[in-house]
Amino acid sequence: MAPDWVNVVAITADGKAVLVRQFRHGTEQTTLEIPGGAVDPSDRSALADARRELREETGYVARRWTRLGVVDPNPAFQTNACTTFLAEGAHPAGHPDPDEGEELEVVLVPVRRLKSLARRGVVRHALVIVAFYWWWTLRRTP
Amino acid sequence: MAPDWVNVVAITADGKAVLVRQFRHGTEQTTLEIPGGAVDPSDRSALADARRELREETGYVARRWTRLGVVDPNPAFQTNACTTFLAEGAHPAGHPDPDEGEELEVVLVPVRRLKSLARRGVVRHALVIVAFYWWWTLRRTP
Repeated sequence: MAPDWVNVVAITADGKAVLVRQFRHGTEQTTLEIPGGAVDPSDRSALADARRELREETGYVARRWTRLGVVDPNPAFQTNACTTFLAEGAHPAGHPDPDEGEELEVVLVPVRRLKSLARRGVVRHALVIVAFYWWWTLRRTP
Repeated sequence: MAPDWVNVVAITADGKAVLVRQFRHGTEQTTLEIPGGAVDPSDRSALADARRELREETGYVARRWTRLGVVDPNPAFQTNACTTFLAEGAHPAGHPDPDEGEELEVVLVPVRRLKSLARRGVVRHALVIVAFYWWWTLRRTP
């Protein structure tokens, strides 16, 4: 059974999204994604997992956390869920501390460019597009 | 290796999205999704697959087809891609003809309600949220 996942849309005070460039062995491609990963059973909550993933993969922490939404990545075969969080006021608090075998590079991108990254296929991970959707929906809704 | 997938945002002339209610064995839940499915190797193109899935799952055909975008459902483990199409001017052309074992119910929903369905968790399938993102991005972009 696949573990639950968390994803983080982390935005700095000056309007940049904190992304990670990563080599994915499934597609054998270098991808641009948002921080996230599998839930650690020892963590107390999805929010705790999200904080840990942001800190480990990017070295960033954030002032304000909001739960944006939950999706089923693949309900035909899997029972796991992916929860997306918004982390505002993100700022570096130290060096990244990725899991062994993970090679990550932190990339800051102005939020106004995210839509273009998705449209041009630079960001192709379905769950990252989902995160953009939640974030964008939140911003556009009164 | 997982097959490629196609998904279809089908919209009727009077502004309703053609959705399908379906029982998913992975999550053991009845879900609300858009028409779509695995690519048939005998089909000539992703567009041909999309037309076939819309016709088989809903009985609908459409006047105008637009390719919205492509995502990797799970690049950590899979190499398959999911292509989303917009099908405008959708209208019924006969009875659905689902694959054996598929139990589908066609549901027409005004497009203005899609965002609320996603926010309230009625639609939870990651690739359907991706499709909403593509469609919404297209509409909001000059």
